[in-house]
Amino acid sequence: DIAPGARVVVSTDTSAEDVHFRAGWFDPAEVGWRAATSALSDLAAMAARPLGLVLAASVPPRWRDALPEIGDGIGDAAAAVSCPIVGGDLTGGRDLVLTVTVVGEAEHPVSRGGAHVGDALYVTGRLGGPRRALEALLRGALPDAADRARFARPRARLAEARWLAAHGARALVDLSDGLVADAGHIAAASGCDLAIDPHAVPRVGGATVDEALRGGEEYELICAAPPTLEARAFTATFGLELTRIGAVVAASPGGPRVVIADGGGRVDLPGGYDHFTR
Amino acid sequence: DIAPGARVVVSTDTSAEDVHFRAGWFDPAEVGWRAATSALSDLAAMAARPLGLVLAASVPPRWRDALPEIGDGIGDAAAAVSCPIVGGDLTGGRDLVLTVTVVGEAEHPVSRGGAHVGDALYVTGRLGGPRRALEALLRGALPDAADRARFARPRARLAEARWLAAHGARALVDLSDGLVADAGHIAAASGCDLAIDPHAVPRVGGATVDEALRGGEEYELICAAPPTLEARAFTATFGLELTRIGAVVAASPGGPRVVIADGGGRVDLPGGYDHFTR
Repeated sequence: DIAPGARVVVSTDTSAEDVHFRAGWFDPAEVGWRAATSALSDLAAMAARPLGLVLAASVPPRWRDALPEIGDGIGDAAAAVSCPIVGGDLTGGRDLVLTVTVVGEAEHPVSRGGAHVGDALYVTGRLGGPRRALEALLRGALPDAADRARFARPRARLAEARWLAAHGARALVDLSDGLVADAGHIAAASGCDLAIDPHAVPRVGGATVDEALRGGEEYELICAAPPTLEARAFTATFGLELTRIGAVVAASPGGPRVVIADGGGRVDLPGGYDHFTR
Repeated sequence: DIAPGARVVVSTDTSAEDVHFRAGWFDPAEVGWRAATSALSDLAAMAARPLGLVLAASVPPRWRDALPEIGDGIGDAAAAVSCPIVGGDLTGGRDLVLTVTVVGEAEHPVSRGGAHVGDALYVTGRLGGPRRALEALLRGALPDAADRARFARPRARLAEARWLAAHGARALVDLSDGLVADAGHIAAASGCDLAIDPHAVPRVGGATVDEALRGGEEYELICAAPPTLEARAFTATFGLELTRIGAVVAASPGGPRVVIADGGGRVDLPGGYDHFTR
């Protein structure tokens, strides 16, 4: 049952072998975990509470034995955010295609478009791990274990997003395409520039600034909120860093954009993360 | 926004080339229409009102030019039942895979399990058209135009299902696997036998009793309701037949089943419709 006045939100996300990942990179449970987390993270971006998840799977013969493990991974990711699995549809095919659709309710939905000039910009967690793991895998190397864990078992920040919405966040996005690209969604929707101090962006050990700014599939959150946001209370609640990385400022003459304010200079930095095959 | 006390329901359904259809059978708009209708019909089976549809499409290069037409077909099927399209995810792949997920609200949800001994059994529309079209296509013949229209552009009976729920239907299912198979779902869930008079089952012109009893992908509705159900009022409202085809009776000693009561005799008839490749 839905709380009166709440909105129902829905999002769908497909994970396909050789488009979104390669078979050797993950075990089947991780493939399932990531597919579910990618969809659930869309609900986090709306500060929604998950109501249910449905899976549609196209499964070629070579993946059939792995299906129970894939299902376990999806189930674990859903259970981690208290989301019931409410349905599914299984079919054959030549490619492994997992389509996860999630339904949620948003009592106080937060869009990308609510940032105000004067707001501060925050990010959860530490960035760069998934990008470092991907780079290692693409050059045939073994990723660092911590980087690999961030890549293979990312967390959808659902409770964290609802906390942020309840504590003043005015614009929110999940970090799936890369910090600069996803911050750009807030800038465009809000009609403001986002000025990011690259050295303030928290990084995992060993990550460069560029890896932290451009790496995708983090599933951390970026939010714009008044600078009074109680970051320490957030960290005390979730055991997760919430770091101020910049500010919302008036839009540039050429239109809203993300500006990397590096040591006093301003560097426009477009672009973000591309899937490895594109 | 959701009515207080209503339940949110969700269903997902995949249509894949060479699993659920062959490319030459349908134009791209029909492929889209059928994919959407198959999912929307799941909402009809719950007597739900559609809130939104999301599409996840894996599209190989050979289908890329057809994508706008596929989208039109999905849009037309959704518009026919006043369902907004609220999201999507497009990816590459070797197979055309369309996963349509629909969300609805059910103010008075009807399950498969509510049939009572003494209820009558009803079916909407006339059966056999899709089966006849499929048989013609499989033998390389041109289907009858009316049969083909029923196969290529089936209707999801959403308003009809809500009418039935509001007028006393106690168990409901959409007819996707074949009358006998789908009636079997009501029998199993309700713990009753369903006795069907095969000659009472309404058929399209030229269809045999067997084609009407076993043909799938009709997307008509089967419901169990007290025999006082006002079938004429239904027909007056929707311009669609609602035909009494049998009764709910006490379960057989071996467990609930569908019994084809043919001229006084009883013939157990298991099974239903299989996808053509299985």
